[in-house]
Amino acid sequence: MDRFELDWPAVAEHCADFVREQVHDAGRGRGVIGLSGGIDSALSAWLAARALGAENLIAFMMPYRTSSDQSLEHALLVVRELGIAHEVIEITPMVDAYFAAFPDADQMRRANMMARQRMAVLYDQSERHDALVIGTGNRTEALLGYTTLWGDMACALNPVGDLYKTQVRLLAAHLGVPEAIITKPPTADLWAGQTDEGELGFSYAGADEILTRAVDEGMSTDAIVADGFDRDVVETVLARVQASAFKRCLPPAPPLRDLGV
Amino acid sequence: MDRFELDWPAVAEHCADFVREQVHDAGRGRGVIGLSGGIDSALSAWLAARALGAENLIAFMMPYRTSSDQSLEHALLVVRELGIAHEVIEITPMVDAYFAAFPDADQMRRANMMARQRMAVLYDQSERHDALVIGTGNRTEALLGYTTLWGDMACALNPVGDLYKTQVRLLAAHLGVPEAIITKPPTADLWAGQTDEGELGFSYAGADEILTRAVDEGMSTDAIVADGFDRDVVETVLARVQASAFKRCLPPAPPLRDLGV
Repeated sequence: MDRFELDWPAVAEHCADFVREQVHDAGRGRGVIGLSGGIDSALSAWLAARALGAENLIAFMMPYRTSSDQSLEHALLVVRELGIAHEVIEITPMVDAYFAAFPDADQMRRANMMARQRMAVLYDQSERHDALVIGTGNRTEALLGYTTLWGDMACALNPVGDLYKTQVRLLAAHLGVPEAIITKPPTADLWAGQTDEGELGFSYAGADEILTRAVDEGMSTDAIVADGFDRDVVETVLARVQASAFKRCLPPAPPLRDLGV
Repeated sequence: MDRFELDWPAVAEHCADFVREQVHDAGRGRGVIGLSGGIDSALSAWLAARALGAENLIAFMMPYRTSSDQSLEHALLVVRELGIAHEVIEITPMVDAYFAAFPDADQMRRANMMARQRMAVLYDQSERHDALVIGTGNRTEALLGYTTLWGDMACALNPVGDLYKTQVRLLAAHLGVPEAIITKPPTADLWAGQTDEGELGFSYAGADEILTRAVDEGMSTDAIVADGFDRDVVETVLARVQASAFKRCLPPAPPLRDLGV
Protein backbone atom coordinates (compact mmCIF):
# COMPACT_ATOMS: atom_id res chain seq x y z
CA MET A 1 0.00 0.00 0.00
CA ASP A 2 3.03 2.29 0.29
CA ARG A 3 2.54 3.80 -3.15
CA PHE A 4 -0.77 5.22 -1.98
CA GLU A 5 0.03 6.42 1.53
CA LEU A 6 -0.01 10.17 1.99
CA ASP A 7 -0.04 12.67 4.83
CA TRP A 8 -3.83 12.42 5.23
CA PRO A 9 -4.35 15.48 7.45
CA ALA A 10 -2.46 17.56 4.86
CA VAL A 11 -4.43 16.03 1.97
CA ALA A 12 -7.74 16.75 3.71
CA GLU A 13 -6.76 20.35 4.29
CA HIS A 14 -5.48 20.75 0.73
CA CYS A 15 -8.71 19.38 -0.77
CA ALA A 16 -10.90 21.50 1.52
CA ASP A 17 -8.88 24.65 0.71
CA PHE A 18 -9.38 23.92 -2.96
CA VAL A 19 -13.16 23.58 -2.57
CA ARG A 20 -13.38 26.81 -0.60
CA GLU A 21 -11.30 28.77 -3.12
CA GLN A 22 -13.19 27.47 -6.12
CA VAL A 23 -16.59 28.23 -4.63
CA HIS A 24 -15.58 31.69 -3.48
CA ASP A 25 -13.79 32.51 -6.77
CA ALA A 26 -17.07 31.72 -8.52
CA GLY A 27 -18.77 34.30 -6.31
CA ARG A 28 -20.88 31.72 -4.53
CA GLY A 29 -20.91 30.56 -0.95
CA ARG A 30 -22.57 27.18 -1.13
CA GLY A 31 -22.26 23.74 -2.64
CA VAL A 32 -24.77 21.09 -3.71
CA ILE A 33 -23.76 17.46 -3.84
CA GLY A 34 -25.41 14.22 -4.89
CA LEU A 35 -25.10 11.47 -2.29
CA SER A 36 -25.29 7.94 -3.69
CA GLY A 37 -24.66 6.21 -0.39
CA GLY A 38 -21.18 5.24 -1.57
CA ILE A 39 -17.75 6.16 -0.31
CA ASP A 40 -16.77 8.65 -3.04
CA SER A 41 -19.70 10.98 -2.49
CA ALA A 42 -19.49 10.50 1.29
CA LEU A 43 -15.84 11.58 1.31
CA SER A 44 -16.53 14.48 -1.07
CA ALA A 45 -19.31 15.67 1.26
CA TRP A 46 -16.96 15.41 4.25
CA LEU A 47 -14.39 17.59 2.49
CA ALA A 48 -16.95 20.09 1.19
CA ALA A 49 -18.62 20.45 4.59
CA ARG A 50 -15.22 21.09 6.11
CA ALA A 51 -14.46 23.65 3.40
CA LEU A 52 -17.73 25.56 3.31
CA GLY A 53 -19.29 24.85 6.69
CA ALA A 54 -22.07 22.31 7.14
CA GLU A 55 -24.71 25.04 6.79
CA ASN A 56 -23.48 25.78 3.27
CA LEU A 57 -23.69 22.29 1.82
CA ILE A 58 -26.96 20.77 0.59
CA ALA A 59 -27.15 17.07 -0.19
CA PHE A 60 -29.44 15.54 -2.79
CA MET A 61 -30.45 11.92 -2.97
CA MET A 62 -31.81 11.07 -6.39
CA PRO A 63 -33.10 7.50 -6.34
CA TYR A 64 -34.65 5.66 -9.24
CA ARG A 65 -37.44 3.21 -8.41
CA THR A 66 -35.00 0.29 -8.59
CA SER A 67 -32.37 1.92 -6.33
CA SER A 68 -31.65 -0.01 -3.15
CA ASP A 69 -32.96 1.14 0.22
CA GLN A 70 -29.48 0.67 1.65
CA SER A 71 -28.10 3.36 -0.68
CA LEU A 72 -30.57 5.88 0.71
CA GLU A 73 -29.87 4.78 4.29
CA HIS A 74 -26.13 5.24 3.85
CA ALA A 75 -26.65 8.67 2.27
CA LEU A 76 -28.80 9.64 5.26
CA LEU A 77 -26.01 8.47 7.54
CA VAL A 78 -23.71 11.01 5.88
CA VAL A 79 -26.33 13.74 6.21
CA ARG A 80 -26.77 13.05 9.93
CA GLU A 81 -23.06 12.74 10.69
CA LEU A 82 -22.28 16.03 8.95
CA GLY A 83 -25.42 17.87 10.00
CA ILE A 84 -26.15 19.09 6.49
CA ALA A 85 -29.50 19.84 4.83
CA HIS A 86 -30.84 17.33 2.34
CA GLU A 87 -33.62 16.73 -0.14
CA VAL A 88 -34.77 13.58 -1.92
CA ILE A 89 -35.67 14.07 -5.59
CA GLU A 90 -36.81 10.95 -7.41
CA ILE A 91 -35.61 10.71 -11.01
CA THR A 92 -38.12 7.97 -11.79
CA PRO A 93 -40.72 10.20 -13.49
CA MET A 94 -38.15 11.77 -15.84
CA VAL A 95 -36.44 8.51 -16.76
CA ASP A 96 -39.67 6.59 -17.23
CA ALA A 97 -41.25 9.41 -19.25
CA TYR A 98 -38.43 9.02 -21.77
CA PHE A 99 -38.16 5.23 -21.94
CA ALA A 100 -41.94 4.82 -22.33
CA ALA A 101 -41.20 5.38 -26.04
CA PHE A 102 -38.19 3.00 -26.01
CA PRO A 103 -39.26 0.03 -23.87
CA ASP A 104 -36.57 -2.26 -25.32
CA ALA A 105 -33.68 -0.05 -24.11
CA ASP A 106 -31.03 -2.14 -22.33
CA GLN A 107 -29.62 -1.65 -18.83
CA MET A 108 -26.63 0.36 -20.04
CA ARG A 109 -28.81 2.92 -21.82
CA ARG A 110 -31.00 3.20 -18.74
CA ALA A 111 -27.99 3.56 -16.43
CA ASN A 112 -26.47 6.34 -18.54
CA MET A 113 -29.82 8.16 -18.71
CA MET A 114 -30.08 7.98 -14.91
CA ALA A 115 -26.60 9.44 -14.46
CA ARG A 116 -27.44 12.30 -16.84
CA GLN A 117 -30.78 12.99 -15.14
CA ARG A 118 -28.96 13.24 -11.81
CA MET A 119 -26.54 15.74 -13.35
CA ALA A 120 -29.44 17.80 -14.73
CA VAL A 121 -31.18 17.80 -11.33
CA LEU A 122 -28.01 18.77 -9.46
CA TYR A 123 -27.25 21.62 -11.85
CA ASP A 124 -30.79 22.93 -11.56
CA GLN A 125 -30.57 22.76 -7.78
CA SER A 126 -27.25 24.60 -7.91
CA GLU A 127 -29.00 27.44 -9.73
CA ARG A 128 -31.87 27.37 -7.25
CA HIS A 129 -29.51 27.57 -4.29
CA ASP A 130 -26.87 29.85 -5.87
CA ALA A 131 -24.36 27.08 -5.32
CA LEU A 132 -21.69 25.13 -7.19
CA VAL A 133 -22.03 21.43 -7.99
CA ILE A 134 -19.47 19.46 -5.96
CA GLY A 135 -18.28 16.42 -7.92
CA THR A 136 -17.62 12.99 -6.48
CA GLY A 137 -15.55 11.13 -9.10
CA ASN A 138 -12.19 9.60 -8.18
CA ARG A 139 -9.11 9.18 -10.34
CA THR A 140 -9.46 5.41 -10.73
CA GLU A 141 -12.89 5.56 -12.33
CA ALA A 142 -11.85 8.50 -14.52
CA LEU A 143 -8.82 6.57 -15.82
CA LEU A 144 -10.89 3.43 -16.35
CA GLY A 145 -13.65 5.41 -18.07
CA TYR A 146 -16.07 3.88 -15.56
CA THR A 147 -18.25 6.99 -15.66
CA THR A 148 -21.10 8.39 -17.69
CA LEU A 149 -19.91 11.20 -19.94
CA TRP A 150 -21.79 14.43 -19.05
CA GLY A 151 -23.35 12.44 -16.21
CA ASP A 152 -21.56 11.66 -12.96
CA MET A 153 -18.34 13.19 -14.32
CA ALA A 154 -20.02 16.59 -14.76
CA CYS A 155 -19.49 19.05 -11.90
CA ALA A 156 -17.98 22.42 -11.10
CA LEU A 157 -15.06 20.96 -9.19
CA ASN A 158 -13.96 17.59 -8.00
CA PRO A 159 -12.50 17.35 -4.46
CA VAL A 160 -11.35 13.72 -4.82
CA GLY A 161 -10.56 13.79 -8.55
CA ASP A 162 -6.84 13.24 -8.06
CA LEU A 163 -7.20 10.38 -5.55
CA TYR A 164 -7.14 6.73 -6.52
CA LYS A 165 -9.93 4.59 -5.06
CA THR A 166 -7.37 3.09 -2.67
CA GLN A 167 -6.61 6.62 -1.44
CA VAL A 168 -10.29 7.49 -1.18
CA ARG A 169 -10.62 4.58 1.25
CA LEU A 170 -7.61 5.68 3.29
CA LEU A 171 -8.68 9.32 3.49
CA ALA A 172 -12.28 8.36 4.30
CA ALA A 173 -11.05 6.20 7.17
CA HIS A 174 -8.86 9.04 8.42
CA LEU A 175 -11.80 11.47 8.41
CA GLY A 176 -14.18 9.10 10.15
CA VAL A 177 -16.58 8.26 7.32
CA PRO A 178 -18.81 5.47 8.73
CA GLU A 179 -17.31 2.00 8.47
CA ALA A 180 -20.44 0.59 6.78
CA ILE A 181 -19.90 2.96 3.86
CA ILE A 182 -16.16 2.30 3.61
CA THR A 183 -16.32 -1.47 3.69
CA LYS A 184 -19.32 -2.28 1.50
CA PRO A 185 -18.59 -3.38 -2.08
CA PRO A 186 -18.64 -0.33 -4.40
CA THR A 187 -21.72 -0.31 -6.61
CA ALA A 188 -23.30 2.06 -9.08
CA ASP A 189 -26.61 0.57 -7.82
CA LEU A 190 -27.74 0.02 -11.40
CA TRP A 191 -29.42 -3.29 -10.67
CA ALA A 192 -29.83 -5.57 -7.65
CA GLY A 193 -26.56 -7.19 -6.64
CA GLN A 194 -24.47 -5.17 -9.09
CA THR A 195 -20.94 -4.33 -7.95
CA ASP A 196 -18.36 -2.23 -9.77
CA GLU A 197 -15.68 -4.88 -9.35
CA GLY A 198 -17.95 -7.65 -10.62
CA GLU A 199 -18.78 -5.60 -13.69
CA LEU A 200 -15.18 -4.50 -14.32
CA GLY A 201 -13.78 -8.00 -13.79
CA PHE A 202 -10.98 -6.88 -11.46
CA SER A 203 -10.62 -5.22 -8.06
CA TYR A 204 -10.06 -1.50 -7.55
CA ALA A 205 -7.08 -2.29 -5.33
CA GLY A 206 -5.50 -4.31 -8.12
CA ALA A 207 -6.38 -1.74 -10.77
CA ASP A 208 -4.80 1.03 -8.70
CA GLU A 209 -1.53 -0.91 -8.39
CA ILE A 210 -1.48 -1.27 -12.17
CA LEU A 211 -2.63 2.28 -12.94
CA THR A 212 -0.06 4.01 -10.77
CA ARG A 213 2.73 1.95 -12.32
CA ALA A 214 1.57 2.67 -15.88
CA VAL A 215 0.31 6.23 -15.59
CA ASP A 216 2.47 7.77 -12.85
CA GLU A 217 5.65 5.76 -13.33
CA GLY A 218 5.48 5.07 -17.07
CA MET A 219 6.10 1.33 -16.67
CA SER A 220 5.45 -0.95 -19.65
CA THR A 221 2.97 -3.83 -19.61
CA ASP A 222 5.86 -6.30 -19.43
CA ALA A 223 7.46 -4.50 -16.50
CA ILE A 224 4.15 -4.45 -14.60
CA VAL A 225 3.65 -8.17 -15.26
CA ALA A 226 7.20 -8.77 -14.00
CA ASP A 227 6.16 -6.98 -10.80
CA GLY A 228 3.76 -9.87 -10.18
CA PHE A 229 0.50 -8.85 -11.86
CA ASP A 230 -1.64 -11.04 -14.10
CA ARG A 231 -1.06 -10.17 -17.76
CA ASP A 232 -4.74 -10.42 -18.67
CA VAL A 233 -5.73 -7.98 -15.94
CA VAL A 234 -2.92 -5.54 -16.81
CA GLU A 235 -3.94 -5.57 -20.46
CA THR A 236 -7.62 -5.19 -19.62
CA VAL A 237 -6.98 -2.24 -17.31
CA LEU A 238 -4.68 -0.45 -19.75
CA ALA A 239 -7.02 -1.09 -22.68
CA ARG A 240 -9.78 0.62 -20.68
CA VAL A 241 -7.55 3.66 -20.10
CA GLN A 242 -6.86 3.95 -23.81
CA ALA A 243 -10.44 3.34 -24.96
CA SER A 244 -11.85 5.94 -22.56
CA ALA A 245 -9.49 8.80 -23.44
CA PHE A 246 -12.41 10.63 -25.10
CA LYS A 247 -14.12 10.88 -21.71
CA ARG A 248 -11.21 12.87 -20.30
CA CYS A 249 -11.19 15.74 -22.78
CA LEU A 250 -13.60 18.29 -24.18
CA PRO A 251 -15.18 17.69 -27.61
CA PRO A 252 -12.64 18.30 -30.37
CA ALA A 253 -13.26 20.58 -33.35
CA PRO A 254 -11.39 20.72 -36.66
CA PRO A 255 -8.81 23.50 -36.15
CA LEU A 256 -8.77 26.19 -38.83
CA ARG A 257 -5.06 26.73 -38.29
CA ASP A 258 -4.51 23.40 -40.08
CA LEU A 259 -5.59 25.30 -43.20
CA GLY A 260 -2.84 27.85 -42.69
CA VAL A 261 -5.30 30.41 -41.30
CA MET B 1 -15.49 41.05 -43.31
CA ASP B 2 -11.95 40.30 -44.49
CA ARG B 3 -10.84 38.91 -41.16
CA PHE B 4 -13.40 36.13 -41.51
CA GLU B 5 -13.09 35.20 -45.17
CA LEU B 6 -11.62 31.78 -45.85
CA ASP B 7 -11.30 29.36 -48.73
CA TRP B 8 -14.77 27.90 -48.13
CA PRO B 9 -14.49 24.80 -50.32
CA ALA B 10 -11.28 23.89 -48.44
CA VAL B 11 -12.90 24.59 -45.05
CA ALA B 12 -15.89 22.40 -45.93
CA GLU B 13 -13.63 19.55 -46.95
CA HIS B 14 -11.44 19.96 -43.86
CA CYS B 15 -14.43 19.89 -41.51
CA ALA B 16 -16.01 16.90 -43.27
CA ASP B 17 -12.69 14.99 -43.21
CA PHE B 18 -12.49 15.63 -39.48
CA VAL B 19 -16.00 14.30 -38.87
CA ARG B 20 -15.30 11.17 -40.93
CA GLU B 21 -12.00 10.47 -39.15
CA GLN B 22 -13.43 10.99 -35.68
CA VAL B 23 -16.42 8.73 -36.30
CA HIS B 24 -14.34 6.00 -37.88
CA ASP B 25 -11.60 6.23 -35.22
CA ALA B 26 -14.32 5.61 -32.64
CA GLY B 27 -15.23 2.43 -34.48
CA ARG B 28 -18.64 3.72 -35.49
CA GLY B 29 -20.11 4.54 -38.87
CA ARG B 30 -22.95 6.87 -38.04
CA GLY B 31 -23.79 10.18 -36.46
CA VAL B 32 -26.81 11.55 -34.64
CA ILE B 33 -27.50 15.27 -34.56
CA GLY B 34 -30.04 17.54 -32.91
CA LEU B 35 -31.63 19.99 -35.32
CA SER B 36 -32.97 23.16 -33.72
CA GLY B 37 -34.03 24.78 -36.96
CA GLY B 38 -31.15 27.24 -36.66
CA ILE B 39 -28.10 27.83 -38.82
CA ASP B 40 -25.48 26.17 -36.58
CA SER B 41 -27.14 22.76 -36.51
CA ALA B 42 -28.14 23.06 -40.17
CA LEU B 43 -24.53 23.68 -41.19
CA SER B 44 -23.25 20.92 -38.90
CA ALA B 45 -25.72 18.50 -40.49
CA TRP B 46 -24.59 19.58 -43.96
CA LEU B 47 -20.96 18.85 -43.07
CA ALA B 48 -21.76 15.56 -41.31
CA ALA B 49 -23.93 14.31 -44.19
CA ARG B 50 -21.10 15.12 -46.57
CA ALA B 51 -18.63 13.31 -44.31
CA LEU B 52 -20.62 10.18 -43.49
CA GLY B 53 -23.15 9.91 -46.30
CA ALA B 54 -26.77 11.00 -45.86
CA GLU B 55 -27.76 7.40 -45.02
CA ASN B 56 -25.46 7.49 -41.98
CA LEU B 57 -26.79 10.62 -40.32
CA ILE B 58 -29.95 10.64 -38.20
CA ALA B 59 -31.53 13.93 -37.17
CA PHE B 60 -33.50 14.47 -33.98
CA MET B 61 -35.89 17.29 -33.32
CA MET B 62 -36.55 17.67 -29.61
CA PRO B 63 -39.22 20.33 -29.12
CA TYR B 64 -40.61 21.47 -25.82
CA ARG B 65 -44.27 22.42 -25.74
CA THR B 66 -43.40 26.10 -26.03
CA SER B 67 -41.03 25.65 -28.98
CA SER B 68 -42.06 27.50 -32.11
CA ASP B 69 -43.54 25.71 -35.10
CA GLN B 70 -41.12 27.56 -37.34
CA SER B 71 -38.16 25.88 -35.61
CA LEU B 72 -39.56 22.46 -36.48
CA GLU B 73 -40.36 23.55 -40.05
CA HIS B 74 -36.80 24.77 -40.60
CA ALA B 75 -35.37 21.57 -39.16
CA LEU B 76 -37.57 19.56 -41.55
CA LEU B 77 -36.26 21.70 -44.40
CA VAL B 78 -32.73 20.52 -43.53
CA VAL B 79 -33.91 16.90 -43.35
CA ARG B 80 -35.54 17.12 -46.78
CA GLU B 81 -32.66 18.95 -48.45
CA LEU B 82 -30.11 16.42 -47.18
CA GLY B 83 -32.31 13.34 -47.50
CA ILE B 84 -31.50 12.15 -43.98
CA ALA B 85 -33.65 10.13 -41.58
CA HIS B 86 -35.24 11.94 -38.68
CA GLU B 87 -37.26 11.42 -35.54
CA VAL B 88 -39.16 13.86 -33.33
CA ILE B 89 -38.78 13.24 -29.58
CA GLU B 90 -40.65 15.67 -27.34
CA ILE B 91 -38.78 16.62 -24.16
CA THR B 92 -41.94 18.04 -22.60
CA PRO B 93 -42.79 15.00 -20.42
CA MET B 94 -39.29 14.84 -18.91
CA VAL B 95 -38.99 18.57 -18.27
CA ASP B 96 -42.50 18.93 -16.87
CA ALA B 97 -42.11 15.84 -14.68
CA TYR B 98 -39.21 17.56 -12.96
CA PHE B 99 -40.57 21.10 -12.64
CA ALA B 100 -43.89 19.86 -11.27
CA ALA B 101 -42.07 19.87 -7.91
CA PHE B 102 -40.50 23.33 -8.56
CA PRO B 103 -43.26 25.41 -10.16
CA ASP B 104 -41.56 28.71 -9.32
CA ALA B 105 -38.43 27.92 -11.38
CA ASP B 106 -37.51 30.82 -13.64
CA GLN B 107 -36.97 30.80 -17.42
CA MET B 108 -33.21 30.36 -17.15
CA ARG B 109 -33.52 27.23 -15.02
CA ARG B 110 -36.07 25.83 -17.45
CA ALA B 111 -33.92 26.68 -20.47
CA ASN B 112 -30.87 24.97 -18.98
CA MET B 113 -32.93 21.89 -18.08
CA MET B 114 -34.20 21.70 -21.67
CA ALA B 115 -30.68 21.88 -23.09
CA ARG B 116 -29.56 19.09 -20.75
CA GLN B 117 -32.57 16.93 -21.56
CA ARG B 118 -31.76 17.28 -25.26
CA MET B 119 -28.19 16.17 -24.55
CA ALA B 120 -29.44 13.14 -22.60
CA VAL B 121 -31.82 12.19 -25.42
CA LEU B 122 -29.15 12.57 -28.11
CA TYR B 123 -26.64 10.49 -26.16
CA ASP B 124 -29.20 7.77 -25.60
CA GLN B 125 -30.06 7.78 -29.29
CA SER B 126 -26.37 7.57 -30.15
CA GLU B 127 -26.17 4.36 -28.10
CA ARG B 128 -29.32 3.04 -29.75
CA HIS B 129 -27.94 3.70 -33.22
CA ASP B 130 -24.28 2.88 -32.53
CA ALA B 131 -23.45 6.44 -33.54
CA LEU B 132 -21.52 9.47 -32.31
CA VAL B 133 -23.21 12.70 -31.23
CA ILE B 134 -22.37 15.46 -33.72
CA GLY B 135 -22.15 18.81 -31.96
CA THR B 136 -23.43 22.10 -33.30
CA GLY B 137 -21.79 24.83 -31.21
CA ASN B 138 -19.79 27.61 -32.84
CA ARG B 139 -16.76 29.45 -31.56
CA THR B 140 -18.57 32.70 -30.85
CA GLU B 141 -21.07 31.17 -28.44
CA ALA B 142 -18.33 29.12 -26.77
CA LEU B 143 -16.22 32.25 -26.18
CA LEU B 144 -19.23 34.22 -24.93
CA GLY B 145 -20.30 31.32 -22.70
CA TYR B 146 -23.71 31.50 -24.40
CA THR B 147 -24.22 27.78 -23.94
CA THR B 148 -25.54 25.39 -21.32
CA LEU B 149 -22.73 23.53 -19.63
CA TRP B 150 -23.18 19.76 -20.19
CA GLY B 151 -26.12 20.67 -22.41
CA ASP B 152 -25.75 21.98 -25.96
CA MET B 153 -21.94 22.08 -25.56
CA ALA B 154 -21.81 18.32 -24.92
CA CYS B 155 -21.04 16.19 -27.97
CA ALA B 156 -18.48 13.74 -29.32
CA LEU B 157 -17.08 16.20 -31.85
CA ASN B 158 -17.88 19.64 -33.07
CA PRO B 159 -17.65 20.28 -36.84
CA VAL B 160 -18.14 24.06 -36.57
CA GLY B 161 -16.46 24.56 -33.19
CA ASP B 162 -13.61 26.64 -34.59
CA LEU B 163 -15.81 28.91 -36.72
CA TYR B 164 -17.09 32.27 -35.58
CA LYS B 165 -20.80 32.90 -36.14
CA THR B 166 -19.86 35.22 -39.03
CA GLN B 167 -17.99 32.32 -40.62
CA VAL B 168 -20.86 29.92 -39.96
CA ARG B 169 -23.03 32.24 -42.05
CA LEU B 170 -20.49 32.45 -44.87
CA LEU B 171 -19.86 28.69 -45.01
CA ALA B 172 -23.60 27.95 -44.81
CA ALA B 173 -24.23 30.25 -47.76
CA HIS B 174 -21.42 28.58 -49.69
CA LEU B 175 -22.90 25.11 -49.08
CA GLY B 176 -26.45 26.09 -49.99
CA VAL B 177 -28.15 25.99 -46.60
CA PRO B 178 -31.65 27.44 -47.20
CA GLU B 179 -31.79 31.23 -47.14
CA ALA B 180 -34.67 31.25 -44.63
CA ILE B 181 -32.42 29.53 -42.09
CA ILE B 182 -29.42 31.74 -42.77
CA THR B 183 -31.21 35.07 -42.57
CA LYS B 184 -33.59 34.62 -39.62
CA PRO B 185 -32.51 36.13 -36.29
CA PRO B 186 -30.62 33.52 -34.22
CA THR B 187 -32.71 32.29 -31.32
CA ALA B 188 -32.41 29.60 -28.66
CA ASP B 189 -36.25 29.45 -28.94
CA LEU B 190 -36.53 29.67 -25.17
CA TRP B 191 -39.61 31.86 -25.24
CA ALA B 192 -41.72 33.55 -27.92
CA GLY B 193 -39.86 36.37 -29.63
CA GLN B 194 -36.56 35.61 -27.90
CA THR B 195 -33.45 36.32 -29.97
CA ASP B 196 -29.83 35.65 -29.02
CA GLU B 197 -28.78 39.17 -29.94
CA GLY B 198 -31.61 40.74 -27.96
CA GLU B 199 -30.63 38.74 -24.92
CA LEU B 200 -26.89 39.35 -25.30
CA GLY B 201 -27.33 43.06 -25.97
CA PHE B 202 -25.03 43.14 -29.01
CA SER B 203 -24.87 41.61 -32.49
CA TYR B 204 -22.92 38.47 -33.33
CA ALA B 205 -21.25 40.34 -36.19
CA GLY B 206 -20.04 43.01 -33.79
CA ALA B 207 -19.00 40.48 -31.17
CA ASP B 208 -16.97 38.55 -33.72
CA GLU B 209 -15.06 41.68 -34.74
CA ILE B 210 -14.20 42.27 -31.10
CA LEU B 211 -13.46 38.62 -30.28
CA THR B 212 -11.05 38.03 -33.14
CA ARG B 213 -9.12 41.18 -32.23
CA ALA B 214 -8.90 40.25 -28.55
CA VAL B 215 -8.51 36.48 -28.73
CA ASP B 216 -6.69 35.86 -32.01
CA GLU B 217 -4.69 39.08 -32.23
CA GLY B 218 -4.18 39.83 -28.55
CA MET B 219 -5.37 43.43 -28.87
CA SER B 220 -6.14 45.39 -25.68
CA THR B 221 -9.54 46.91 -24.92
CA ASP B 222 -8.17 50.37 -25.69
CA ALA B 223 -6.75 49.25 -29.03
CA ILE B 224 -10.07 47.68 -30.01
CA VAL B 225 -11.94 50.85 -29.03
CA ALA B 226 -9.44 52.85 -31.09
CA ASP B 227 -10.40 50.61 -34.04
CA GLY B 228 -13.90 52.13 -33.85
CA PHE B 229 -15.84 49.91 -31.45
CA ASP B 230 -18.05 51.08 -28.62
CA ARG B 231 -16.24 50.75 -25.28
CA ASP B 232 -19.30 49.44 -23.44
CA VAL B 233 -19.79 46.68 -25.97
CA VAL B 234 -16.09 45.75 -26.00
CA GLU B 235 -16.03 45.54 -22.22
CA THR B 236 -19.28 43.55 -22.10
CA VAL B 237 -18.04 41.05 -24.68
CA LEU B 238 -14.65 40.57 -23.02
CA ALA B 239 -16.20 40.30 -19.55
CA ARG B 240 -18.36 37.46 -20.87
CA VAL B 241 -15.27 35.65 -22.19
CA GLN B 242 -13.59 35.91 -18.81
CA ALA B 243 -16.65 34.98 -16.74
CA SER B 244 -17.37 31.89 -18.86
CA ALA B 245 -13.87 30.38 -18.79
CA PHE B 246 -15.17 27.58 -16.56
CA LYS B 247 -17.42 26.41 -19.39
CA ARG B 248 -14.41 25.79 -21.61
CA CYS B 249 -12.51 23.37 -19.41
CA LEU B 250 -13.12 20.12 -17.60
CA PRO B 251 -13.86 20.19 -13.86
CA PRO B 252 -10.70 20.92 -11.88
CA ALA B 253 -9.48 18.78 -8.98
CA PRO B 254 -6.95 19.66 -6.27
CA PRO B 255 -3.66 18.24 -7.60
CA LEU B 256 -1.77 16.01 -5.19
CA ARG B 257 1.54 17.10 -6.69
CA ASP B 258 1.02 20.43 -4.93
CA LEU B 259 1.72 18.46 -1.76
CA GLY B 260 5.06 17.32 -3.10
CA VAL B 261 3.70 13.85 -3.91
